[in-house]
Amino acid sequence: MPQTIQQKFVHQVIGHSATNNRLASKNKIGSGSAPVNIALSKYWGKRDATLNLPTNGSLSISLPGLGTKTQIERLESQNQQTDLVSLNGQRLDQDNAFAKRVSQFLNYFRETPQTFFKVDTENSVPTAAGLASSASGYAALVLALNDLFAWNLDNKSLSLLARLGSGSASRSLFNGFALWHQGQQADGLDSYAEAIDTTWPEFCVGLLEIDVKQKPVSSTQGMQNTVETCALYQAWPQQANQDMQTILQAIKDHDFATLGKTAEHNALTMHATMIATWPPIVYWQPESVEAMHKIWRLREQGVAVYFTMDAGPNLKLLFLETEKPAILQAFKQIKILEPFKS
Amino acid sequence: MPQTIQQKFVHQVIGHSATNNRLASKNKIGSGSAPVNIALSKYWGKRDATLNLPTNGSLSISLPGLGTKTQIERLESQNQQTDLVSLNGQRLDQDNAFAKRVSQFLNYFRETPQTFFKVDTENSVPTAAGLASSASGYAALVLALNDLFAWNLDNKSLSLLARLGSGSASRSLFNGFALWHQGQQADGLDSYAEAIDTTWPEFCVGLLEIDVKQKPVSSTQGMQNTVETCALYQAWPQQANQDMQTILQAIKDHDFATLGKTAEHNALTMHATMIATWPPIVYWQPESVEAMHKIWRLREQGVAVYFTMDAGPNLKLLFLETEKPAILQAFKQIKILEPFKS
Repeated sequence: MPQTIQQKFVHQVIGHSATNNRLASKNKIGSGSAPVNIALSKYWGKRDATLNLPTNGSLSISLPGLGTKTQIERLESQNQQTDLVSLNGQRLDQDNAFAKRVSQFLNYFRETPQTFFKVDTENSVPTAAGLASSASGYAALVLALNDLFAWNLDNKSLSLLARLGSGSASRSLFNGFALWHQGQQADGLDSYAEAIDTTWPEFCVGLLEIDVKQKPVSSTQGMQNTVETCALYQAWPQQANQDMQTILQAIKDHDFATLGKTAEHNALTMHATMIATWPPIVYWQPESVEAMHKIWRLREQGVAVYFTMDAGPNLKLLFLETEKPAILQAFKQIKILEPFKS
Repeated sequence: MPQTIQQKFVHQVIGHSATNNRLASKNKIGSGSAPVNIALSKYWGKRDATLNLPTNGSLSISLPGLGTKTQIERLESQNQQTDLVSLNGQRLDQDNAFAKRVSQFLNYFRETPQTFFKVDTENSVPTAAGLASSASGYAALVLALNDLFAWNLDNKSLSLLARLGSGSASRSLFNGFALWHQGQQADGLDSYAEAIDTTWPEFCVGLLEIDVKQKPVSSTQGMQNTVETCALYQAWPQQANQDMQTILQAIKDHDFATLGKTAEHNALTMHATMIATWPPIVYWQPESVEAMHKIWRLREQGVAVYFTMDAGPNLKLLFLETEKPAILQAFKQIKILEPFKS
């Protein structure tokens, strides 16, 4: 019987037949892999922290070749009374923050309180690239669970489950652009992501790595503090939803200027809500601001380049293939990805 | 007869007797001097651009020894058909932006369209200190006009007139703390500043000069763009007025922590509205962000220091005398002022 709110949610998503399948699982090992994603219009603020329900919808682009591969198996020994979690080949202590969060998530899926798992996670995301691995991580873990338990869930259900691990993970089940519906229901069953059916071969994302000198505030803590102490935040959900619609239309129209401008404004507005939080949340480092001014100077010179930033100091540049030479000349260390050319 | 809205406003402020005095002026040369001021809760946004009426009240501290001295005289020659404006001993061209703005302001005060003035302005504000000289400049000019025309106006009337030249000039007629009332009337006659009758000998302001690498957006243009394109701005006026009241009470209680925290949060919130404007207004330079992080690290170490920032890259540190050694050690180049020890 489901006991916690999250267990009840999982029960609703995977349904009865799937529940029965859990006991009849044929696969000894389940595996899954998922890409990281960069939000073009951001997720910032929860209306329900237990179910990871957002105050606004969001829209992302997945990055090919960067992500997470995960394998999961049931531990059979009765002597093993904890999960065994490895990250990039290294077994983690039970009190490691990453391992604890994975185990908490697995609590929603155990057949009995005595069922434990072995989880092996490999991130192909360079640690310093400033890309959140929790999105690809929980998407890959849900795919691995789906494989292990032979649920055969559809994308909507997979996205709902991934959301429970990390909000932005709901968007990491897809390649290309994805849109996470805010949803309205209290049960959270209408808050999931879908792929946007478009390709845009010229679309490029440039990863600009900034030295991290300061220990950051976690996204979860940061968005909670923002919602509670930032007076400006009250206007955010409406702008974020508008920006999402504007970007969705720009994607359909292949209107890059509108996409870039709206994504940059959206990211800066999210950071503005953090900056106006108390205590202030300033993820920007000196090098972040230097890069922003550089991008604005390039734009004044006619280079169609925009940027977005997440809860960290790094910039992600947005541009079309034609601007690649100018970008490479201006930013020697940039890593350029082409999401539709993988 | 007054013709423009501003001329009508001036007419209302100086009154009939003063108007008559204008013709009966005994002083051949009028002179005035006024300090610069740093807002602890900011002025950002106009509800009326013609009369410089703000969307919110603000509160400032004047800096002793930094400001403007101005002399004004009527030009008698009929051949002289323009004002003659000098800044720091240098005669300015007629199409110089500073000279044009002064002449436009003087238009509100000419007895006839053929009356022209010679204005000599000396700023003791180091150009690179990031202190706006328009506040002290228009306060000093109004004092000089009051002297020339022998109006004998009270502080309220002087503040109303200075406001017409530059909003923040309304606060530069006073030493120590001053509060600019937002006012409610359409005629602008209730939007003026008053001195807050307190001394706080231990109160220090540290000026931290940041290299300006980028040509900034003017405050007037910046606040206009913010009001028009920043969705977050809608929450600003209410927060700004609350902050002003909180700081006013903290001044009365000599509660430095509340003052510092509220002033820093207020400044960051103002900058947040700029950052969320389109095109973005980011006055911050890499060195600004470096200094912020340094201040936050100092605070974590127990040093009670806060900062405020205006429409530029420079930081103004707020602290009490006891923290002076720690501040001087952390910021070698800082210039410390003690507003109540001049």
